[in-house]
Amino acid sequence: MTVTDELIAANTRYRDSFTKGDLPLPPARQVAVLACMDARLDPAQVLGLAEGDAHVIRNAGGVASDDAIRSLTISQRLLGTRSIVVVHHTDCGMETFSDDQLKASIVAETGQRPAFAFEAFPDARADVVQTIRRIQTSPFIPHTDDVRGFVYDVRTGSLEEVFAS
Amino acid sequence: MTVTDELIAANTRYRDSFTKGDLPLPPARQVAVLACMDARLDPAQVLGLAEGDAHVIRNAGGVASDDAIRSLTISQRLLGTRSIVVVHHTDCGMETFSDDQLKASIVAETGQRPAFAFEAFPDARADVVQTIRRIQTSPFIPHTDDVRGFVYDVRTGSLEEVFAS
Repeated sequence: MTVTDELIAANTRYRDSFTKGDLPLPPARQVAVLACMDARLDPAQVLGLAEGDAHVIRNAGGVASDDAIRSLTISQRLLGTRSIVVVHHTDCGMETFSDDQLKASIVAETGQRPAFAFEAFPDARADVVQTIRRIQTSPFIPHTDDVRGFVYDVRTGSLEEVFAS
Repeated sequence: MTVTDELIAANTRYRDSFTKGDLPLPPARQVAVLACMDARLDPAQVLGLAEGDAHVIRNAGGVASDDAIRSLTISQRLLGTRSIVVVHHTDCGMETFSDDQLKASIVAETGQRPAFAFEAFPDARADVVQTIRRIQTSPFIPHTDDVRGFVYDVRTGSLEEVFAS
């Protein structure tokens, strides 16, 4: 039995007690969360979000990549969200390497250099500010007056606010 | 009190009962989930994932954008994941518009055309297959022998498998 088989089995249990089949498509609380993909960070639990409440966008680092800008644009323009919450965290994998280092190891193994940035960063607090600047200066995201940024502490479960627009 | 203030208050409650401060950085179950940002889809609950189990990457549609490829590359090469689970869902916002239409409305409002694709798609099942093809043909993702794709039914809470590598 693979891990994916185990996830399918878990879904059977979820489905059997499922009661939320009538939620509307637009997020009820009109908020989009942009967070790191880290396994220890569960945005729904950390922020008290129920199904239907919020868009949750996640990638390595929780950075405002073009793809995160794309997702936030769709979230606001088509699905009515108005607030943005950025969540980075302590002990992040993005602090453990550099783009140059990872690209060199990939070139050595595959003979090909990725044409994109890996977005490694040395400091999660500083990168929250970078992330929010990219959001605020995007010409495509209409609502940037309520954008707030946090670092989640994986040791204590608590959020520290580091930036508010 | 804004919605973000409410999320901070919810975090205080989470923090006060937090017991998972000693989890390691690499995901325990060596799996990365790529899912849509949709508010009704909570990957942790749908798939039975606890904190520490899995990387969760999310964007509009759950597509294999360059940024998702970036995140999966980091997940496998630096943090030891081996399996990938793709989750799209029924009643997806990505089925409600076209790239041309959204770009035209943004140009009309801002005078500027986004230089990236919005990745709208007409059919979630077909797009799961597209997403997995992009993952499997990426030269940077080393482990593509266990990639499986699902459509989550937001009305019933159940997963339908549509593709396995």
